[in-house]
Amino acid sequence: VPGNEEVKRAVERYVATLGDDRAASIAELFAEDAVFEDPVGGDVRRGREAIRAFYESALGNQSVSSELITLRVSGGEAAFHFRLEVGGRIRIDIIDVMRFDDAGAITSMKAYWSPEDIVAL
Amino acid sequence: VPGNEEVKRAVERYVATLGDDRAASIAELFAEDAVFEDPVGGDVRRGREAIRAFYESALGNQSVSSELITLRVSGGEAAFHFRLEVGGRIRIDIIDVMRFDDAGAITSMKAYWSPEDIVAL
Repeated sequence: VPGNEEVKRAVERYVATLGDDRAASIAELFAEDAVFEDPVGGDVRRGREAIRAFYESALGNQSVSSELITLRVSGGEAAFHFRLEVGGRIRIDIIDVMRFDDAGAITSMKAYWSPEDIVAL
Repeated sequence: VPGNEEVKRAVERYVATLGDDRAASIAELFAEDAVFEDPVGGDVRRGREAIRAFYESALGNQSVSSELITLRVSGGEAAFHFRLEVGGRIRIDIIDVMRFDDAGAITSMKAYWSPEDIVAL
């Protein structure tokens, strides 16, 4: 289990990378065999390549800005509320839950949101 | 899997019950065989009686006020940020993740917080 400070840095890196980089860079933050569910209740994706494809499809070439709002770290896991603005058109506030390996790579992610949480800008 | 509205009502009931009622009433919101981890990384408790004992120990006869701040519902699960004030002495913001049965009873809860999140009032 990684320490709280390691987990905080990993979450901050994830949120910052959402905001300024593309799918391949985001996927690099995940462990090779990571498990990924976004949104919870949807398909469960496994592995870095499936995760890269998800972000490529979700974000494409749109501008993205991101902001970490509330982060809680507990027992080597993280739960955090963050805000995404995509393409200058929509905003969504999401609560993510993540686990990490000892190197700080994300081993699992669950994203809690539903279509009604999408706000048009 | 319960619907989003059912899950929202169940979370609102939980947060309201934290604020105005005692351990037995809170425990009634959980399924008989619920799994409970508060904080994540601590002991995993199983069953309504163990959950009742947890709240009895954590809250006792202290005054408690609670406020739901951000709720996300996805795939029949909930993740939410809420604020507790206990005994007029401390405040803590927690992110909880819950699952539910079809009747809206809580079947699992994981609470994300660490001692550094406790604020003296």
